[in-house]
Amino acid sequence: MKVGILGATGAVGQKFIRLLQGHPWFEIEALGASERSAGKKYKEAANWIEDVVLPESIKETIVKNCDPDEFSDVDFVFSGLDSSVAGEIEKAFASAGIPVISNAKNYRQDPTVPLLIPEINPDHTELIKKQTFTKDGSGWIVTNPNCVAVPLAISLKPLYDAFGIEALILTTMQAVSGAGYPGVASLDILGNVVPFISGEEPKVGPETRKILSTLEGTTLAKPHFPVQATATRVPTINGHMISVTAKLEDPPANVEELKAAYTNWKNPIADLDLPFSPNQLYKLHEEEQYPQPRLHADAENGMQLHLGRLRKAEVFDISFVAMAHNTIRGAAGGAILNAELLVKKGFLK
Amino acid sequence: MKVGILGATGAVGQKFIRLLQGHPWFEIEALGASERSAGKKYKEAANWIEDVVLPESIKETIVKNCDPDEFSDVDFVFSGLDSSVAGEIEKAFASAGIPVISNAKNYRQDPTVPLLIPEINPDHTELIKKQTFTKDGSGWIVTNPNCVAVPLAISLKPLYDAFGIEALILTTMQAVSGAGYPGVASLDILGNVVPFISGEEPKVGPETRKILSTLEGTTLAKPHFPVQATATRVPTINGHMISVTAKLEDPPANVEELKAAYTNWKNPIADLDLPFSPNQLYKLHEEEQYPQPRLHADAENGMQLHLGRLRKAEVFDISFVAMAHNTIRGAAGGAILNAELLVKKGFLK
Amino acid sequence: MKVGILGATGAVGQKFIRLLQGHPWFEIEALGASERSAGKKYKEAANWIEDVVLPESIKETIVKNCDPDEFSDVDFVFSGLDSSVAGEIEKAFASAGIPVISNAKNYRQDPTVPLLIPEINPDHTELIKKQTFTKDGSGWIVTNPNCVAVPLAISLKPLYDAFGIEALILTTMQAVSGAGYPGVASLDILGNVVPFISGEEPKVGPETRKILSTLEGTTLAKPHFPVQATATRVPTINGHMISVTAKLEDPPANVEELKAAYTNWKNPIADLDLPFSPNQLYKLHEEEQYPQPRLHADAENGMQLHLGRLRKAEVFDISFVAMAHNTIRGAAGGAILNAELLVKKGFLK
Amino acid sequence: MKVGILGATGAVGQKFIRLLQGHPWFEIEALGASERSAGKKYKEAANWIEDVVLPESIKETIVKNCDPDEFSDVDFVFSGLDSSVAGEIEKAFASAGIPVISNAKNYRQDPTVPLLIPEINPDHTELIKKQTFTKDGSGWIVTNPNCVAVPLAISLKPLYDAFGIEALILTTMQAVSGAGYPGVASLDILGNVVPFISGEEPKVGPETRKILSTLEGTTLAKPHFPVQATATRVPTINGHMISVTAKLEDPPANVEELKAAYTNWKNPIADLDLPFSPNQLYKLHEEEQYPQPRLHADAENGMQLHLGRLRKAEVFDISFVAMAHNTIRGAAGGAILNAELLVKKGFLK
Repeated sequence: MKVGILGATGAVGQKFIRLLQGHPWFEIEALGASERSAGKKYKEAANWIEDVVLPESIKETIVKNCDPDEFSDVDFVFSGLDSSVAGEIEKAFASAGIPVISNAKNYRQDPTVPLLIPEINPDHTELIKKQTFTKDGSGWIVTNPNCVAVPLAISLKPLYDAFGIEALILTTMQAVSGAGYPGVASLDILGNVVPFISGEEPKVGPETRKILSTLEGTTLAKPHFPVQATATRVPTINGHMISVTAKLEDPPANVEELKAAYTNWKNPIADLDLPFSPNQLYKLHEEEQYPQPRLHADAENGMQLHLGRLRKAEVFDISFVAMAHNTIRGAAGGAILNAELLVKKGFLK
Repeated sequence: MKVGILGATGAVGQKFIRLLQGHPWFEIEALGASERSAGKKYKEAANWIEDVVLPESIKETIVKNCDPDEFSDVDFVFSGLDSSVAGEIEKAFASAGIPVISNAKNYRQDPTVPLLIPEINPDHTELIKKQTFTKDGSGWIVTNPNCVAVPLAISLKPLYDAFGIEALILTTMQAVSGAGYPGVASLDILGNVVPFISGEEPKVGPETRKILSTLEGTTLAKPHFPVQATATRVPTINGHMISVTAKLEDPPANVEELKAAYTNWKNPIADLDLPFSPNQLYKLHEEEQYPQPRLHADAENGMQLHLGRLRKAEVFDISFVAMAHNTIRGAAGGAILNAELLVKKGFLK
Repeated sequence: MKVGILGATGAVGQKFIRLLQGHPWFEIEALGASERSAGKKYKEAANWIEDVVLPESIKETIVKNCDPDEFSDVDFVFSGLDSSVAGEIEKAFASAGIPVISNAKNYRQDPTVPLLIPEINPDHTELIKKQTFTKDGSGWIVTNPNCVAVPLAISLKPLYDAFGIEALILTTMQAVSGAGYPGVASLDILGNVVPFISGEEPKVGPETRKILSTLEGTTLAKPHFPVQATATRVPTINGHMISVTAKLEDPPANVEELKAAYTNWKNPIADLDLPFSPNQLYKLHEEEQYPQPRLHADAENGMQLHLGRLRKAEVFDISFVAMAHNTIRGAAGGAILNAELLVKKGFLK
Repeated sequence: MKVGILGATGAVGQKFIRLLQGHPWFEIEALGASERSAGKKYKEAANWIEDVVLPESIKETIVKNCDPDEFSDVDFVFSGLDSSVAGEIEKAFASAGIPVISNAKNYRQDPTVPLLIPEINPDHTELIKKQTFTKDGSGWIVTNPNCVAVPLAISLKPLYDAFGIEALILTTMQAVSGAGYPGVASLDILGNVVPFISGEEPKVGPETRKILSTLEGTTLAKPHFPVQATATRVPTINGHMISVTAKLEDPPANVEELKAAYTNWKNPIADLDLPFSPNQLYKLHEEEQYPQPRLHADAENGMQLHLGRLRKAEVFDISFVAMAHNTIRGAAGGAILNAELLVKKGFLK
C-alpha cells in the first residue's frame, strides 16, 4: 500500500520514515510538511536526527504541501503533524477520502475517533463507522495515545481485567526525545531533573480511561477511576519510565497473583501476526534494578512494554514501574501498528 | 570546640571536612578511618572528590584508627561511618564518654536516640537523657535521617501541623552522590534511570514517622500514616527530588491555604542563629519547572528545602515536589546543624 | 560607577547581572535588550537561567532599548550583544561618548581596539587612544577574546615569554553553556560528542596572536605562529577544556623547566588588587586526572586558569591541557576584569 | 567451530557472548573465568550489562576455570582476560595446542604475534608460523589492538599508502565502556571530562606502527613516525572519537585528493565475505557535525570506521576526526573478525 507522511520533517515524521523502511506492506509514496519545506528535497528540508543514515530514496524526494490534492495517489496517510495545525489538515484529508492514522492529540477525545492500541482495545475500531467526514466512509481518522498514556494503559489492561481499578497515582520520568527537536535545551536537562512538562499531565487520565473503555454498541462506556500524575523530564534519550501505585477493586492476595494477571492475559491480536506486533508484549523483569530506559527501550524493535518492581503496596494495593520506547511504541511505531490492524480489519484496503 | 571525624576518608567524611572549614565554633582535631588508612597522611589515605581543593591543614593530618583512645582530646565526633562498622564503633565512643553526631543508620530507630532535624523536632534532644552508654551521661548518640527522609519530613512538617497526614505515596529521583564513591557506575546511569535503590525504601516511612513524633514526657508518640515509596536513581550529581501525593486529615480548601501552611509556619529555632541554619528554610518555587537539582541544590549553602508544584490532587488531597541537597542538608550539613543545636541546648560543651 | 548592560536578557547578559551583584565599584543602572524586550520588566523579558535567584532589584527593572539616548546616566556599558547587532549598537554607544566593554566579536580584530586580558596584555589599553569614535576620546570600545582564545592565550603567555612559540595544534572540548540558551539541543549532546562548532576554529589563531602581540609605539607587532584547532562540543555545563601540543623556539630541557615558566612568571597587574583578579592565576594540577571542568571551573570565582598534564612531547616539544570557566573567565568575568583594569588605568572615571 | 571464551564474565567477555549469538561459523562451547566464578552458572557468576537479554543457552552454562584441560573440546578460544592474568593463561592455552584470539595487551608487542586488523594487515598472520608454543604449530596467539589504535590505524592506512606519514598529534575522547564494568564512577564523569586514562597513551604509537608495518619475509619492518597522544574520557557510552593532525611525506594538494585516498583504497579482504566485515569500511561524513558516537557507533553492527572533518591543516598537513565502536570494532568484534580471517587462511580449522 502506498502511504503518505504528514509532518514528515519533524521528529515524529522522521521516525515514521525510519520505521517504514523495509515494511512488508507499506511503501512511502509522498512526504508532506509546512510551506517552508514544500518544494524542497527532503534532505534539504529536514534536519535528520535519527541514528541511521537517511535512506537514499527519501533524500531526493520533493516535499509536498499538506494538501490532500497533492496526495491523491496514496492509500492513507500517517500524521506526525504538530497539534497547532493537525486539526485542520487531518480534517481536510479525511474529508477528501484519505484515511488518517494520526499521532496528534487533536481528535483523541472525539467520541467517534478510536484512541487505539491494537493489543488493548482493537474493537474500538468500530467507532470509525460513526465518522462523517465523507458520505461513503472512505475518509476517517484514527489516533494513538500520548506517549505516557501508552505505557500506562498497556501496563494497566491486565490489572483492569483481573482486579478492576479504583485510583492511580503516578510519577513519570520522561526522555528528552519526547519533546521533539530541538526540544529540551541541554542547559535545562544535563545533570538535572525538570519536574514539569507542559500539557502532559492533563492528558494522562482522560486518555487512559478512554483506552480502557468498553465498547457498548457503538459507544464507549468509560471507567471512572481518578488519576493523579506528576510528569518530569530526566536526561535520558528514549524510554519513558512511569512509577505507578494503584488502588484496585478486588486486589490480588499476593505478588504471584499480581504477576499472573500478566502471564495469563490473552493478547486479542496474537493471531493476526502484525509485522510491528512484539512477540512478547509484556516483559516482566524480575531483577529489581530493571527495567532501564537505556538497556530496554529498544527491545523487540521498541514495541515491548517493560514492567518491573511489581509488589504489594503499603498505601493502596500495588506498585510497579513501567517503561516503553516513547517515540516508537508511544508514537510512530504505535501508529504503524494501528495501520496494520486496520488493514487486517478491512478498514484500509 | 574540637571535633573528630569518623569515616573521614569516605564521601560523607570528606563532606564533613569541607563543610567544617571556617566553621565559627568547630575545629577539626582528629580524623579516623579504617585500619587500611590509619597511620597514613590524609592526602594519601583519601581519594578527595570534593570540588574544592583539599585544605592544606588536612592534607598532612595523620589518619587515626576509629578507637576512642586515640580521640581523647576531642569534644565530640561526627560519624560518617559505613553502617557495617558504625554500630560497634559509635557505641564504643559513646561508652567512652565521647558524644557521637552520626549520619549512619544503625541507631536511628533506637527509642532513646533522637533522629534529629533541628527545625522540625528540636525537643527530641530530650531523649538523650535516657541513654545509658555512660553513667554520667557524658557519652551519647544523636543521628540524622536518611537523605530521602530529610526532605520528606521537612516538607511535611507544616502540613502535618496544619492538616494532619493520613497517607503518602511518593517516588524519588535521587542523585548519584547519595551512593558515595565510587558508588554508581557510569555505565549504569549515563542517559538512564535505575528504578531501585537497595535498602532505601524501607527507611522512608519509619524515619519520617519518628521525626514527626510528639514527645510525651520522655517518650515519642509516633503517627501511624502509611508511606509507599519508590526510590529511583537518575543522572544528577547532587539534590534528591521527591514527588509526593498526600492524603490529609483535614485538607486545605485550595492551594492558597496549602501554601499558607508553609508561609505561616514558625521555625522553632529561628532565634538561635545557628551558623548552618538557612535564612529561609522553605523556598516555595512558583515557576512550574522549578525546583531543579542542578539549579537549586546549592542554595543557602545546600541547607534549604525546595518546594514546587504545590497543587490539589485528583487522588488523595495534594501533590508537590520537594528537593534538597542530599549530602549537605541530607547528610553532613544536617549533622553539623544537629551539633550546633546540641551546643545551644547545652548537651555539647 | 554606574554601568549599563547591553544584551541583558541573553546568556552573557545574565552572567553580567549575576557577577556584578555586590561588586565593590560597579552598580547596575540600566539594562538594554532588543525591541521585543524593551519596556517590559526584566523578570518578564528574560528567561533567567542562572543557578542563583534573580536579584530582587533587577526583577522589576524596566528593560530599555539599546539606544545611547536611554543610557545617558551610565558611566559605561558592558555588551553581551549578539554579533548580528553588536557592530552597529556598540559603535553608536562609543560615538555617543559611552565606553563599551564588549564580549562580542565584532571589533576584536580592529587594530585600534584592545583584545584585552588584563594579566596578559594590560599595555594594549594604549590602543584606545587611537580610536576616533568621539573627538574628545570619551567614547571607545574594548573587547575580550573568544572563550577558547582566553584559556589558550593565558596558558601560552609564560611559555611565549620563556621559550617562544613556533606552532600549535589543539583540540577543544567545550561546554554547552558556550552556545547560550537554548543553545545546544539535548538530543544532540546527551551521551555524545559533536566534533564541530560553527565559527569557532577560525577565531582561535588570530585572536591568540593578537593577544600575545607586542605593543610597539601604538601599534601591535603580531607573532606569526600557525595554529591548527579542532573544536568539539561535549556534555559539560561549564568549563572549556583544551588539549594543546606546541612547538617552541627554545624548548625547556625538561618538565621542571616547563613548570618553572609558570611559577616564575610575574603577573603584571598583581599589585592592582582588582576585585575580579584571581589570587592565583595559574593552578598547576599535579594529579594526572586533573583539571576537570566539573570540579575546577568554579575555583577562584571562575577566574582561574587550570593547567594539567604538562609534559614533554614525542612530536613537537610539549603537551598540556588547559581549562577555564567559559562564561566567567572566558566571557562576562573577563569583561568585568577588563573594566576594573580600565578604571585603574584612568580610562574609566 | 566450537569456541571457548576466557574472561567470559567481564565486559569484553560479555560482548563476545552477545556478538557470537547467531554467528554462522562459531558456536560457544565453553566459558572460562576466575576461580571465584568457576563452578557457578553463568547467570550467577556474571553481572550482565549488555542491552539485550542474556541468551537462555548461556544462562545455565557452568563457568569453568581458565585451564586448558577444561577446554579440550573447543577449536580455539577468544580471550577477554584482564592483562594481569592474560599472560600466563594465554600461554598455557597456546602451549596446549589451543589457538588464542586475544583482546589482551600482553602479547601485542611480541614480534611473532600478529597485531591484526584484517582489512589493514591481513598478511601479518604469517608471523604465526614463527611461534613456538607447540612443536606442531597447533597452538598460537593472535591479538587485536587497543581500542584507540584500532580506529587510528584504520583511518591512517589509506593515507599511509597514498601519502606516507611523518608525524601524528592526536587527542582522544573516549567512551566509558572502554573501562569495563563498574569502570568509571559516575561521580567522575557525569557532566565532566577527565584528561587522562591510565596506560592508554603509551600504547597508541607502538601499536599503530606495528599494525602499519610491512611484512618482509617473516619479519615486520616498522615505520618510524612519532605519535603524540592525549587520551581523555568523556561521558559517552560507546564510540571512541579521535581528533588527529598529521604530517605527511607527500601531502595531497587539496581535500579532494585527501578524500580520494579513501575512496580509491582497495580492501584486501573484500572478496572473502567475512561475516563480521562491514560492507563499507570507511564512512566519510560530509556534514561537519558528524560523526557522532551516539548516532554512528552502531552502524554496520559497530564494525564501521567513521571519518569526518577531513581538511587541510595550518600546522602539518591535514586534520580529521575518526570514530569507531570501542568494544565492538575496537575489541570483541575485531577479535571475531580476526578469527574469521584465520579460518579463511586455514590457520583455524
